[in-house]
Amino acid sequence: MSRLRRMLETHPEPAGSNGDEARQCIEACAECVQTCAICADACLAEANVRELVACIRLNLDCADICHVTGLLMARPSHRDAPALRSQLQACIDICRACADECQRHADMGMEHCAVCADACRACADACARMAGALVP
Amino acid sequence: MSRLRRMLETHPEPAGSNGDEARQCIEACAECVQTCAICADACLAEANVRELVACIRLNLDCADICHVTGLLMARPSHRDAPALRSQLQACIDICRACADECQRHADMGMEHCAVCADACRACADACARMAGALVP
Amino acid sequence: MSRLRRMLETHPEPAGSNGDEARQCIEACAECVQTCAICADACLAEANVRELVACIRLNLDCADICHVTGLLMARPSHRDAPALRSQLQACIDICRACADECQRHADMGMEHCAVCADACRACADACARMAGALVP
Amino acid sequence: MSRLRRMLETHPEPAGSNGDEARQCIEACAECVQTCAICADACLAEANVRELVACIRLNLDCADICHVTGLLMARPSHRDAPALRSQLQACIDICRACADECQRHADMGMEHCAVCADACRACADACARMAGALVP
Repeated sequence: MSRLRRMLETHPEPAGSNGDEARQCIEACAECVQTCAICADACLAEANVRELVACIRLNLDCADICHVTGLLMARPSHRDAPALRSQLQACIDICRACADECQRHADMGMEHCAVCADACRACADACARMAGALVP
Repeated sequence: MSRLRRMLETHPEPAGSNGDEARQCIEACAECVQTCAICADACLAEANVRELVACIRLNLDCADICHVTGLLMARPSHRDAPALRSQLQACIDICRACADECQRHADMGMEHCAVCADACRACADACARMAGALVP
Repeated sequence: MSRLRRMLETHPEPAGSNGDEARQCIEACAECVQTCAICADACLAEANVRELVACIRLNLDCADICHVTGLLMARPSHRDAPALRSQLQACIDICRACADECQRHADMGMEHCAVCADACRACADACARMAGALVP
Repeated sequence: MSRLRRMLETHPEPAGSNGDEARQCIEACAECVQTCAICADACLAEANVRELVACIRLNLDCADICHVTGLLMARPSHRDAPALRSQLQACIDICRACADECQRHADMGMEHCAVCADACRACADACARMAGALVP
């Protein structure tokens, strides 16, 4: 069993926080932080960096938003429900925007953008499932 | 003139990003990061820490959300408008929740909570003004 | 192959950045961010929170330091070598301190602290191997 | 009196944490986060972005390192002294490297780089004074 799963299962207030949606959301956010941070750095190192500026910019916002969304999910006690919902929505918004921009460059053969677009879509989906699992 | 103002005024793409709302939003977020981080640490050092757990928790989320909101505001180029709106809403939500919880302890004489409640309210207001100034 | 590995392998400037040490360091930092964030929240939810204050505090610093260390490792181009070395050292220092404190509570039956102590030790080791692999 | 000063003065464990060095270090880190985040975005928006890639990269690392250094300074209780020293050193290292790179572009008329170089030097100085004020 992964350390993340063991942490969530031994948390003393698991109510609503140790389901598959929560764990997968935390995992998807962490992966998207990594792919977006690396994609921004890789785009900066490409010869055609001028064409990649929008991609770099969205990568930066996406990495930062995914990080804070993952932190909120990792702290299930005493949560503010409206703030969590808004934060998940911000994460869905930026992941979709970043995935679309990365995909444009992936379609022209930029491999790191292809992998990053996949991670962004997976993160948007995981956040959407998490938002759907929140008690209304 | 502050360094922040000079940075925003010399940015090559100032459209909609160097107004008073943007600068005040960035300043309010930075201050709220500081007061929430210190308030969490101060609450942890109080003898009645058990009564302050909800305050500590909201402080942690508020500091992290204010930081990323300030970063998004500090990067005006190539922004994704829906993500920015959602992020500002998350910041308004958490600042209000954190202000309310801090105020409860301020009313019982906890001075750092009083200062932090003020900073949270100021940040919520600055983010609301910023959201109102965004082109629809 | 994991997305992280594919990102590092398709980065256009892989020199010295796509080895096993780099990838394992990024992975260990990301895991330690998660376990420390959850451990802080879990400790705050325990009845004996007063005895866990030092653990919570070290968890907070450790999560934040691991995050920035992981970001530096995820951006291999144009790195400042002295800053990277100092940052890896800060990560080793805080992971060891956090592991020691968590272990004290693990020895008294606190399960989330046991898992977190393991993650902190693994992260300190991964950062030490990474520092050792840097060209002098 | 600023909110930051009031927070530090009402913290219940002020020992060694509410001096001028600590407050100025927190303030300098927060300002450097802002100038580096804006400078990276401004450089990405310049027509000669290819010549600014190293500047953008150092700005990203500098903003992130300054943020975590400011957080550590904002949480004076139960600190790990070796980790704090290493983190201050990492901040000094990256601020100096970022200032040097920004200054190169400032010398060629890039105004945002000039302001950012000033903020980076001020932050390196504040961190060095703080490190000097730590009890050995």
